[in-house]
Amino acid sequence: MLRNSLKFSLVDKEKLKDSREKILKEIESGEIGYFHLSKIAKDTILQTREFVQKHKFKNLVVVGMGGSSLGVKAVVGLLEENYPNSPKIYFLDNLDSYSCKKVLDNIVFKDTLFIISSKTGTTIETISIFKYIVAKFSVLNLGENFIFITDKDSSLEKFGKECGVEIFHIPQNVGGRFSVFSAVGLVPFEMMGFDTLALIKGEEACKSDFLKDDFILQKAYHYATHRNAKINVVFSYLDKFESFNQWYVQLWAESLGKKKIYERVGLTPVGLIGSRDQHSFLQLIMDGIKDKTVTFLSVKASKNSEKIPNLKFAYMGSCDFVNGMGIDEVLNYQAQATMQAVVNEGVSVDSLEFDTLDEWHVGYLLSYYELLTSAVGAILGINTYDQPGVEIGKRILKNIILKG
Amino acid sequence: MLRNSLKFSLVDKEKLKDSREKILKEIESGEIGYFHLSKIAKDTILQTREFVQKHKFKNLVVVGMGGSSLGVKAVVGLLEENYPNSPKIYFLDNLDSYSCKKVLDNIVFKDTLFIISSKTGTTIETISIFKYIVAKFSVLNLGENFIFITDKDSSLEKFGKECGVEIFHIPQNVGGRFSVFSAVGLVPFEMMGFDTLALIKGEEACKSDFLKDDFILQKAYHYATHRNAKINVVFSYLDKFESFNQWYVQLWAESLGKKKIYERVGLTPVGLIGSRDQHSFLQLIMDGIKDKTVTFLSVKASKNSEKIPNLKFAYMGSCDFVNGMGIDEVLNYQAQATMQAVVNEGVSVDSLEFDTLDEWHVGYLLSYYELLTSAVGAILGINTYDQPGVEIGKRILKNIILKG
Repeated sequence: MLRNSLKFSLVDKEKLKDSREKILKEIESGEIGYFHLSKIAKDTILQTREFVQKHKFKNLVVVGMGGSSLGVKAVVGLLEENYPNSPKIYFLDNLDSYSCKKVLDNIVFKDTLFIISSKTGTTIETISIFKYIVAKFSVLNLGENFIFITDKDSSLEKFGKECGVEIFHIPQNVGGRFSVFSAVGLVPFEMMGFDTLALIKGEEACKSDFLKDDFILQKAYHYATHRNAKINVVFSYLDKFESFNQWYVQLWAESLGKKKIYERVGLTPVGLIGSRDQHSFLQLIMDGIKDKTVTFLSVKASKNSEKIPNLKFAYMGSCDFVNGMGIDEVLNYQAQATMQAVVNEGVSVDSLEFDTLDEWHVGYLLSYYELLTSAVGAILGINTYDQPGVEIGKRILKNIILKG
Repeated sequence: MLRNSLKFSLVDKEKLKDSREKILKEIESGEIGYFHLSKIAKDTILQTREFVQKHKFKNLVVVGMGGSSLGVKAVVGLLEENYPNSPKIYFLDNLDSYSCKKVLDNIVFKDTLFIISSKTGTTIETISIFKYIVAKFSVLNLGENFIFITDKDSSLEKFGKECGVEIFHIPQNVGGRFSVFSAVGLVPFEMMGFDTLALIKGEEACKSDFLKDDFILQKAYHYATHRNAKINVVFSYLDKFESFNQWYVQLWAESLGKKKIYERVGLTPVGLIGSRDQHSFLQLIMDGIKDKTVTFLSVKASKNSEKIPNLKFAYMGSCDFVNGMGIDEVLNYQAQATMQAVVNEGVSVDSLEFDTLDEWHVGYLLSYYELLTSAVGAILGINTYDQPGVEIGKRILKNIILKG
């Protein structure tokens, strides 16, 4: 279970009617594919299981930019503690010489499956790293250690088919940043041994709550109509949320930064980790301009948490008040104390608390943020699903290199 | 060498006179210690060298929150590629049960030096983790595997002296987030085998450039007086800037988010990595509200860069235009292309290009950001060096736990 507690004033249900209808229309139209991914999840899972039965690998290397790796990283980060015996998974998500070399120098090629993930099939960084891998290991038969995850009929698929590479499809109408419940995520999750069906059940539960309840819409309305707070902070209490935060940043920034005909619209995401960033960003939230909303994410303290031992050091008595407590327990008290301090400053706050971090809850969490993003976009009246602004730089790059 | 190119309009030198004088006063007063750290650097370096001659460790574990670890992490991230044979270094910078356990389960205690770093000496997370380490390894003699970095006469120093622990001092007038050139940084850097004297020379070179030149002041003036752009993005092109970005975020957020008598002041830092985050945050910069400035950080392509091989795959011709180029080289073209696209949108941009990433340049870079932060704070008319807003949460925490 999870509890979402909104610590700001809610609006009349009547005000949410239009936005609810807009999103229902989006869902019913069938044009925005991510709403409907659970229907085809089983096919992807079966295809992956068949593949896994025939091929065993000790390492997985996901090569993918943005939406092709962020969601995978997020879920792996949240679940890997529960799966100590899964394959080791690495991510090549930047065109960085040192990072690529460091990962590839430390793996044995024949024990490794490379997952080349590119929706369009022609992402320049992904394909360049793919070429680098092929050359580094003098690969002769691509079919043995590579799979491709890409759109149907992309150039990458055509090339892969000629080389006997197994292809997994992303539905055309599912954008990269909304693709975590498609093959982009499900294929590596199955290979890691995660319970992907429970993940999908969590996603479906959130969609169903969204349709019958108002809490996501209330939050979306508050964010979309807040005159001053154009920065949205997610303050997650546990290191394992680090990659989830990055996934959220992409989802939010690419979806909600858009030009309308006469204006520019944009909400800026910031991902923080507690208690670490209480020693970094918190001062700005507390005393800076009130241009932020803050969501506190926390997980009920685990029984497996390590404990702070009951040691008393001379002169250090002021630190003994947490002695004997679970580390997770103190962390949650820190979340609670910080939230209270931020609320006292009059900042818009809500909290999202999870009983545990298993597949169901992770599926719910990611779906929650996808739906929240769609809802904010609908209320802002923008196209949540495109990213026209990033194309220009790609064209300039080609020009600089080709024309010198 | 490095080049800082400001792509926004500069103001008349006369306008910078006041702020220059304010900062000179800060420097001359001697109250803000970080300006003067290079004078005592040699003593710290000598003390560390003496220690290192007597003790050899395969692993270093830095236990420290915020300013006690972020600067160390930043410099290690930027330099470690050049030092493949240095001790392995780990950071425990969050009260996170799983992270602490994972690090400590994988090291051999007798081969490890634990650096307990806390300016006040009573940071609750740091001391709790310290106790956890002591209990986990049933430590009897603290003096053998621990050193403390702390303020003179702190409770931690008093306790350490009784246990025979070597103490390294942070000057009282140096704040945590401005402490990277104090013992906080220099002690681990020496232990890693870095050329700390060159690091300090780079820092001094930046201070000296700051005193005779205007480029940092021009940038500070632009940031402090920009009516709309309250978000400052650092877009760093290389994965190794990841921890530097986090250091910058703390420095900026804690220093520049402050209450004045009648108003709140705050500039929000965002750290991005290129080209990775071109697939994430860039859309928001391009098409969202123009509430951001962007600094592009890049390093001249290294001769050691791996190359994109000259492979041509069927159907994939559109990706061949980078074939044969160095990975770093393409990355830098991406920085250039993205910068051009952002400039074309009318966003305030500047670029900072480094010839190489050695100690001198890293020292220069960190000093550049410290001075820039001081300059912006001086122009905003705030106290750049305190953090009153984070104390309240600490009091609430104690109340919640003690009073239930």
